[in-house]
Amino acid sequence: MSRIAIIGCGVVGSSWTLVFARAGHEVVVYDPSPASADATLAFVRDSLAGTPELEAVIARIRTAPTLEEAVADASYVQESSPERLPIKQELYARLDTLVPPKVVIGSSTSGLPASSFTETLATRARCLVVHPVNPPHLIPLVELVPAPWTAPEALAFAGELMDAVGQQPIRLSREINGFVVNRLQSALLGEAFRLVEDGIVSTEDVDKAVAEGLGLRWFFMGPFETIDLNASTGIAEYCRNLGPMYYELAREQADPREWKAPLVATLEAARRVSVPAEKLSARRLWRDRWLAALVAAKAQIRKELGR
Amino acid sequence: MSRIAIIGCGVVGSSWTLVFARAGHEVVVYDPSPASADATLAFVRDSLAGTPELEAVIARIRTAPTLEEAVADASYVQESSPERLPIKQELYARLDTLVPPKVVIGSSTSGLPASSFTETLATRARCLVVHPVNPPHLIPLVELVPAPWTAPEALAFAGELMDAVGQQPIRLSREINGFVVNRLQSALLGEAFRLVEDGIVSTEDVDKAVAEGLGLRWFFMGPFETIDLNASTGIAEYCRNLGPMYYELAREQADPREWKAPLVATLEAARRVSVPAEKLSARRLWRDRWLAALVAAKAQIRKELGR
Repeated sequence: MSRIAIIGCGVVGSSWTLVFARAGHEVVVYDPSPASADATLAFVRDSLAGTPELEAVIARIRTAPTLEEAVADASYVQESSPERLPIKQELYARLDTLVPPKVVIGSSTSGLPASSFTETLATRARCLVVHPVNPPHLIPLVELVPAPWTAPEALAFAGELMDAVGQQPIRLSREINGFVVNRLQSALLGEAFRLVEDGIVSTEDVDKAVAEGLGLRWFFMGPFETIDLNASTGIAEYCRNLGPMYYELAREQADPREWKAPLVATLEAARRVSVPAEKLSARRLWRDRWLAALVAAKAQIRKELGR
Repeated sequence: MSRIAIIGCGVVGSSWTLVFARAGHEVVVYDPSPASADATLAFVRDSLAGTPELEAVIARIRTAPTLEEAVADASYVQESSPERLPIKQELYARLDTLVPPKVVIGSSTSGLPASSFTETLATRARCLVVHPVNPPHLIPLVELVPAPWTAPEALAFAGELMDAVGQQPIRLSREINGFVVNRLQSALLGEAFRLVEDGIVSTEDVDKAVAEGLGLRWFFMGPFETIDLNASTGIAEYCRNLGPMYYELAREQADPREWKAPLVATLEAARRVSVPAEKLSARRLWRDRWLAALVAAKAQIRKELGR
């Protein structure tokens, strides 16, 4: 057990608080807006309502009135401040003088490379991106993205900590736009937008193609294992047989498009038929209940069938 | 209830046989190799072993010694012959004279447009692609792809039949290389191969990014609903906020690459560490058991939480 400082208590910081506290860590949360820090406690209470661990988890969390106090005894800092470079730069300049020696600082940023806000810091070797998939307490994955100056020990520490709290780490060798998760999502979204823009298929049917088809395999296998099992001797045979077809498709897809207003209006209209604007919040709760149920079902199936 | 003719009894035809027979249809199966037709019955027996419906399902299936007999009383034909154009052309020329009036012929082809093997046929208005995701008895999705001459009634018939047997149809407006499912998969695979080739991330970590991250949402939502719920007022706001970032990524990804031998060797080596060659068959059984368990878990969660 160690003491984790959560800096920034929006949706992501609140979810991180739950991740660390339910794993047994003491968590100190800080947000420039004290109301946000309090909301984090309310979020954890709501999320664990009716479960036996609620009080024990809550007892491990406290809010700190200042950044100084939040990080004073921390053994790890998870920063989830707003996604704007000047804010991160100013915050990290302060963390640079406040964070105890050797303590690693992970940023939840989904888009800014750590090098863009840590270059001039004395602590820069201890800084890296530890990017969750939203919401972290339901999706057990993080991306570890080192800056050019991140020390291997800092990367190793973050990887072990994430493994220990149940957030499986993937390790990028270097900074790249969008990291891995958003790059993969980008590729799929690009083709999804293209197919709708070209009138090939409806918005609803794209979602169905994934949610009733491709997503069933990707839920537990990933794209490489999926194709590896789709040729009798494995992935090399698959690539030999289907590589030329995929290359042809890739050439057709090498057509980057902006998401223009008329297309976005079409998508928005289709989505509002499925879920009216006033029901979006309820639908998000539905999503989170699905994710929680799926995570439980997956754990159960894993017990029976193995990983 | 109606009589379904299954033409071609490889992996796909066998799985289709199970789909139709378990839904209550009489199924007549034909393959030029009688052993294949018999193997289909064995496949259905294995798949339903230990279930109460086994004997009733088996009782609905019979093999036909000739193509003529297989289609003589059929009310729908699902063709799953080998994926080679001359074979399909020759087969469809025969079906053209044998299939009773008004009967629709769906092809399981994953890569050949129906126009390439039906153009000259008297029955061409009744032909279309009805493309499953492998294996159809575990993945409840089909793509309906009309040729330019496919009659709307044929498309409508196939859609209703698929809905009735639990294979949710998506409807393409016209033929396109790779249809929708493989185009979406192609986009994701292209980026996955690129990230490994460029040394950003390991094969295993790409699979983890999907199987522990992106795939959890795509299992039940699809890519459009996923982003719709990721901005407070919905997809239009998401596109406004993140469109420029995704356009930047799309430009970086507009780099179609052949799957070259050294990269394929890297992937093959990584996969064989995870699953040695001699364990691939067992791993496929593991996959199918996972899919069956997931389909059951999903149905259960849907009962509780809704679609």
